[in-house]
Amino acid sequence: MATYEVPGIVNRLWTTAHEPVLTIDDGDVLAFELQEAGGGQYDDFRNGDEVPPTDLDRFYPLAGPIMINGAEPGDVVELAPLEYSTGDWGWTSILPGMGLLPDDFSEPHLHRWDLSAPGGADYKGIATIPLRPFCGVMGLTPVTDEPLSVIPPGRFGGNVDCRDLTVGTRVFLPVQTTGARLMFGDPHAAQGDGEVCLSAIEASMSGVMRVRLHKGRTIQAPQFQTAGPLRSGIDDQGYYATMGVASDLMSAAQDAVRFMIEHLAGRYGIDPVDAYLLCSVAGDLKISEVVDAPNWVVTAYLPLSIMN
Amino acid sequence: MATYEVPGIVNRLWTTAHEPVLTIDDGDVLAFELQEAGGGQYDDFRNGDEVPPTDLDRFYPLAGPIMINGAEPGDVVELAPLEYSTGDWGWTSILPGMGLLPDDFSEPHLHRWDLSAPGGADYKGIATIPLRPFCGVMGLTPVTDEPLSVIPPGRFGGNVDCRDLTVGTRVFLPVQTTGARLMFGDPHAAQGDGEVCLSAIEASMSGVMRVRLHKGRTIQAPQFQTAGPLRSGIDDQGYYATMGVASDLMSAAQDAVRFMIEHLAGRYGIDPVDAYLLCSVAGDLKISEVVDAPNWVVTAYLPLSIMN
Repeated sequence: MATYEVPGIVNRLWTTAHEPVLTIDDGDVLAFELQEAGGGQYDDFRNGDEVPPTDLDRFYPLAGPIMINGAEPGDVVELAPLEYSTGDWGWTSILPGMGLLPDDFSEPHLHRWDLSAPGGADYKGIATIPLRPFCGVMGLTPVTDEPLSVIPPGRFGGNVDCRDLTVGTRVFLPVQTTGARLMFGDPHAAQGDGEVCLSAIEASMSGVMRVRLHKGRTIQAPQFQTAGPLRSGIDDQGYYATMGVASDLMSAAQDAVRFMIEHLAGRYGIDPVDAYLLCSVAGDLKISEVVDAPNWVVTAYLPLSIMN
Repeated sequence: MATYEVPGIVNRLWTTAHEPVLTIDDGDVLAFELQEAGGGQYDDFRNGDEVPPTDLDRFYPLAGPIMINGAEPGDVVELAPLEYSTGDWGWTSILPGMGLLPDDFSEPHLHRWDLSAPGGADYKGIATIPLRPFCGVMGLTPVTDEPLSVIPPGRFGGNVDCRDLTVGTRVFLPVQTTGARLMFGDPHAAQGDGEVCLSAIEASMSGVMRVRLHKGRTIQAPQFQTAGPLRSGIDDQGYYATMGVASDLMSAAQDAVRFMIEHLAGRYGIDPVDAYLLCSVAGDLKISEVVDAPNWVVTAYLPLSIMN
């Protein structure tokens, strides 16, 4: 087993046409530097500045593709993050027409975070967000005629944006093509389940990850195993939670977040944009029930420990 | 402040036509006995018996309505469960045409649980389910021309089936009519987020609950505040988790549970019906991301500590 530095070459689409940057074996370890998802376009932004236009073509600089010797369709690749180190700043944005509540938030918004404090990331003196870094994107290149955008995830993985893929978790991905063609990136310093405002605390990150190949084990979509409790150091003071009740899960999720935003405004006097952003980086969406037809319940949970 | 025994009168529909069984004041405490949601129809069933026909008319015997002096539309009623004691047996069922996966499970299924062991409820030697009792139904009677079935929840609350409404949690409900007309029941000994197979561990329960009235505080749907971590004693060994990735949240939820059932079959040799039932009483559905258009991710989490 060997350790490899992943070359700094980045790719921004899912396609088997990319030239592999590295070839490794089962059990090898990767060391890497990942740029934040904006590809550097917000480096010069400071809070209070006018929100710069967004260049979506610069989004999602991914590491890879990395070939894994012996990987064939029907196998499983396991990614085990061993160490993630977040850079000293990050950003969170709201873009018009995107996110869970595009009709409620029509103006662009961008916030720069200072991530250098040990206790978490301060948000305007209102809240302190504990950092739990992970990669928003981890995927094995799918078979495709046309190159695919990185934005939508798929059964191959990709932009699944699951907050629990942290150090200690073992992530299992289904191999789609010979060699697997692993790509990953979109480092997040913190994110809630749902990522409701569109973005996490997006921040460059260095990391180390072990890669394993499981021959003859077939899965249909990403799976993972966590090492222990999911919210240690976050849930100690409990949660405030707001339900959305509706005949479709999307409307229920939207209402749950809307009511949390109203709650934060009423209880703490927080501006709706700030509340929406806090829900995205620290709140969790759960499906409380999905069987009491015709109405389902989605609940938004915000940990009380984050509030100053 | 006084403590009242709730009369054993039950009602099975949401309507303001029910005769109130009790009238209380802000701060009063209720003591009650709640029958399991089947209304006694499964009392004589034993595992191995033929599954009896289900009489939906006997379902959801609720306590109440209880009038709260001074409650008016626009106010909030807070319910604070102080003590829940589950009876010594329970049941979980799958009914054809209902639940999250009606196309996958077309046969009726019924399981009787022994709840008398202190460490949790054994499931066929496969798993042990820790008990966390709560009421599946808590609601303030809505304004309605026709009596409403108890099955669908609404913004008034009702059958929200949220597993975190346990002792220690403060539940907030919006008052719909003068006097609030509180009804509650559907006691659950344990349930996962989603209640995917249709039912929880359904078991009769005695309890004590404090009722408070908050004048001039308006909410649009149920909200609650938990006292601390959500899964203490459950999540110590971490979780196995399976993702569903689809362009609608319902399909993503269905796939997530299907893949967990496949995982449990492959890893532990568990029959699909048993796996579906375990997902319902102990697994949690989370919305990992709902912004990476056009595909969303719902993830099913099963705590490893329950597996024997």
